[in-house]
Amino acid sequence: MEDVRIKFGIKVKVLRLSRGYSQEKLAELADLDRTYIPGIESGKRNVSIIVIEKIAKAFQISISDLMNSL
Amino acid sequence: MEDVRIKFGIKVKVLRLSRGYSQEKLAELADLDRTYIPGIESGKRNVSIIVIEKIAKAFQISISDLMNSL
Repeated sequence: MEDVRIKFGIKVKVLRLSRGYSQEKLAELADLDRTYIPGIESGKRNVSIIVIEKIAKAFQISISDLMNSL
Repeated sequence: MEDVRIKFGIKVKVLRLSRGYSQEKLAELADLDRTYIPGIESGKRNVSIIVIEKIAKAFQISISDLMNSL
């Protein structure tokens, strides 16, 4: 099975692009350091539940929806 | 809003008890160190996506279901 970090990164990238956000914009909305987003999208970061919540809030979706089909 | 770690911990505990698992049993099923589970259930641990996936697998539910209503 593909690594959950890779699948999560792809999901974040697809959502971000569908909203027309730059990586910097997403970082700002999620209150994350902007150097963080590339590592998430490439599946390198083992994101924590607090970061997951921040990203869900930035996209204005539930955590469950963000984690859907991972 | 209540901390997402607290809500996740309660969810794990409720699921664990509903299955009749001890903390040791859940740790074994999830392939986690058994000292890890109390910290998760008390909301002290900022669990990573890899740990979330392991716990979902232990309960044989999807990650999305595990994260439902957090």
